[in-house]
Amino acid sequence: MSQTPSTPPHDHHGDSGRALAEFRQFRERMNTRILGENNLVINRFFNLDGRAYEGGALDVKTKELLGLVASMVLRCDDCITYHIIRCAEEGVTRDEVFETMSIGLIVGGSIVIPHLRRAVDRWDEVERARAT
Amino acid sequence: MSQTPSTPPHDHHGDSGRALAEFRQFRERMNTRILGENNLVINRFFNLDGRAYEGGALDVKTKELLGLVASMVLRCDDCITYHIIRCAEEGVTRDEVFETMSIGLIVGGSIVIPHLRRAVDRWDEVERARAT
Amino acid sequence: MSQTPSTPPHDHHGDSGRALAEFRQFRERMNTRILGENNLVINRFFNLDGRAYEGGALDVKTKELLGLVASMVLRCDDCITYHIIRCAEEGVTRDEVFETMSIGLIVGGSIVIPHLRRAVDRWDEVERARAT
Amino acid sequence: MSQTPSTPPHDHHGDSGRALAEFRQFRERMNTRILGENNLVINRFFNLDGRAYEGGALDVKTKELLGLVASMVLRCDDCITYHIIRCAEEGVTRDEVFETMSIGLIVGGSIVIPHLRRAVDRWDEVERARAT
Amino acid sequence: MSQTPSTPPHDHHGDSGRALAEFRQFRERMNTRILGENNLVINRFFNLDGRAYEGGALDVKTKELLGLVASMVLRCDDCITYHIIRCAEEGVTRDEVFETMSIGLIVGGSIVIPHLRRAVDRWDEVERARAT
Amino acid sequence: MSQTPSTPPHDHHGDSGRALAEFRQFRERMNTRILGENNLVINRFFNLDGRAYEGGALDVKTKELLGLVASMVLRCDDCITYHIIRCAEEGVTRDEVFETMSIGLIVGGSIVIPHLRRAVDRWDEVERARAT
Repeated sequence: MSQTPSTPPHDHHGDSGRALAEFRQFRERMNTRILGENNLVINRFFNLDGRAYEGGALDVKTKELLGLVASMVLRCDDCITYHIIRCAEEGVTRDEVFETMSIGLIVGGSIVIPHLRRAVDRWDEVERARAT
Repeated sequence: MSQTPSTPPHDHHGDSGRALAEFRQFRERMNTRILGENNLVINRFFNLDGRAYEGGALDVKTKELLGLVASMVLRCDDCITYHIIRCAEEGVTRDEVFETMSIGLIVGGSIVIPHLRRAVDRWDEVERARAT
Repeated sequence: MSQTPSTPPHDHHGDSGRALAEFRQFRERMNTRILGENNLVINRFFNLDGRAYEGGALDVKTKELLGLVASMVLRCDDCITYHIIRCAEEGVTRDEVFETMSIGLIVGGSIVIPHLRRAVDRWDEVERARAT
Repeated sequence: MSQTPSTPPHDHHGDSGRALAEFRQFRERMNTRILGENNLVINRFFNLDGRAYEGGALDVKTKELLGLVASMVLRCDDCITYHIIRCAEEGVTRDEVFETMSIGLIVGGSIVIPHLRRAVDRWDEVERARAT
Repeated sequence: MSQTPSTPPHDHHGDSGRALAEFRQFRERMNTRILGENNLVINRFFNLDGRAYEGGALDVKTKELLGLVASMVLRCDDCITYHIIRCAEEGVTRDEVFETMSIGLIVGGSIVIPHLRRAVDRWDEVERARAT
Repeated sequence: MSQTPSTPPHDHHGDSGRALAEFRQFRERMNTRILGENNLVINRFFNLDGRAYEGGALDVKTKELLGLVASMVLRCDDCITYHIIRCAEEGVTRDEVFETMSIGLIVGGSIVIPHLRRAVDRWDEVERARAT
C-alpha cells in the first residue's frame, strides 16, 4: 500500500486503519444518542433492523449478502461498510463479495461504480485488519 | 381464490393465470425487437445481464435472491416478477422468499409495501401454476 | 366529469368510483395474506407502520401530510392514494393538499408531475365520494 | 403489428394507436385541472418546465435527448413517453434514440430494462403514426 | 461531549461548531456564483424554491417539517441540514423533529439510518448553538 | 476567488487544485484494483461503460452531456465530476454546461441543488486548470 496515496479523496478517511474505527465510533455514539431519545417508532425499528438479519430459512451469511447488494443498488456507503464488516465476520470469501457486488453493478448501473470503488477499498481494509 | 376479486386493481392483469403469460409474451416480444436493433452497447448489456446470474462462487439460487432483493428496494415490479419466476424455477421455498422480501422491506421501508403486495400475489400465482 | 374521458389512461381504473374500491379491496386482501404468513419481521413492520402515524408531539393530520409528501417525492402512486384517503378523513382541505403537493413537486422535480396528475385525480375522486 | 399480441401486458394500453391518444388526453385534462387550481408554486413550476427545453446554447433536439435520458434513469414511463413524442417531433432519428437509451441503460442498469421495453414500444408507435 | 471523538467520521466536519458555519459559507458562496451566471431557468427555480416554503394554507413550520421529511427519504444530507436549521428557527421542538424523522425512517427504511445519525448530530449542534 | 474560503465544506477537498488530482488518483488506483480481480461481469461492464460514450449517431460531446444530466438527476457527485472533466475535454462551453444542469435541476428538483453547487465548483476548477 505504501506506493498508493495515503488519503483516498472520496472517502476522506486519512488512513484506512483509522477509517473503520471512526465509522464504528460515530455509529455507536449516535445510536446511543438516538435510542436514548426513547422515540417508540425509531427504537422498535432499530430493533427490527437487527432481527431481519438473524438466521431462519436463510442463514446469516446469505442475509448479509442480501443486505450488501441492497445497500449497493441504493448507493449508501455507510450501509455498504456495515455489511462488508458483517460479511467478513460471517466468513464470506473475496470471490463471493465480488460476485455479490457484480450483481449490484448490473442491476444498478454505472452510477454504482463510485460506491463499488469505496466498497472494494473497505473490503481490502477489513481483510488487512484480519491478517494482522 | 374464488372468493377474492378476479381483477386485482394494481396490476390490472385480468386473471392471474393470464398475467404471467402476458408478462412473458411482452418481455419476449420486446427483447427480440430491441436485440434486433443491433445497438452494440444494449446487446452486450443484455448478454452481461444474463451472465451475472450464472453460478460461480455463489450458486444460482443465491444470485436470484440477490436479484430479487435488489429489485424490491429499487421498486421495479417487472424485475420482481422476473426474479420471482426464476426463484421458483431454482427451488426457492416460500419461507426463503418471504425472508428475502422482509430484508427488502426493512432496507427500503414502507414505500416497498405496494410492491411487496404484488410480489406475494405473483409468488402465489407461480405456486398455483406449479401445483397444476 | 361527464365531458372528460371515463377511462384515464395512466391509472387504468375504468371509472373513478370503482378505482378507490378496487384499491381498498386489493390492499386488504393482500395485507391479510401477507400477515397470515407470520413472518415476524414483516408483521412487526406493518404494525410499526401504523404506529408511526398516531398522534403525539405532532397531530395525526400533520403526520398524514408528512406521509403524503414523502410518498410523492419517492413517486409511489399507491402510497399517495393511501395518504390522500387518510388526509381526507382527517379533514385536510384542498388548499392544504395542493400546498403539500407543491412542496413535493419543488423537492422532487418534474419527474413527480405524472404522479401529481394521478394524485389530483384521486383527490377529486375522494372529494366527490364525500359529496355524495 | 397483426402478428404481435394486441394487448401488451405491462402498459395495458389496449392497442397502441389508442395508447398515445389516451396519454395525451389524460395529460391535457389533468394539466388543465391542476393549473386551474391557481397554486402559484405549481403553476410557475409548470411554466418553468416548459422553458427549460427551449433552444439556447443547446438546441431543442439536444435538450429533448437530455430529458429522455434523465427520464430513463429515473424510470418514469410517462416522462419517457412525453420525450419520445417530442424527440420524434424534433426529427431525432431511430439510431439517435437508441444511443440515448443505451446511455440510460448503462448509467441506470438492468432496472431500466422494463422501461426500455416500453420506451421502444412507444417509439415504434410514434414511428407508425408518422408513417400513416 | 468531551469524551466523544471530536471528528465524527462520516460528516468530516472537524468540530461541530465549525461544521454549520462551513455549510452556510459554502452554500452562500456557491449560490452567489450560480445566480450570477444568469441562467433564467436556474435562477427562477431558486426563487420558486424559496416561495414554496412561505406560509399559506399551511404555516411555515409545517412546511419546514414537510421539507425535512422529503429530504430524509431522498437521503440528502445538505438538504436535511438546511431544514434542520430552518425548523429550529421556526421553533420546532425536539420531539416534533424526532417524530418527523421517525416517519422518514418508516417510509424510507434502514437505508435512511446513516442520514438519521447525521441529522440528529446536526440537530444537537443547532440546539447547542441556541443554548450559548 | 482569493476572498472565498479555501476549504469548501461539503466536498472536503482542501484546495480545489488538489481535489481533481485526488479524484483522479483514487479513481485510477481503485479501477486497477477492481479490474485486477478478474471478475468477468465487472470487467466487461467497465469496458461497456467506456464504449457507451464513443461517437456514433450522436457525437461524443452530446453523449457526455447525456452522462452529465443522468449523473445529476441520480445525484452522484463522483459521476458528475467525471463528466464535467470529460465535457471540458470535448470543448463544451460554460453556457452549454449550465443549460444541461438546468434541465437536471428541473427534472430532479431542489434535491439536486447541493450537487449543482459542487458541480459548478468543479467546473470552475476545471476552467481554472485550463487557464493556467
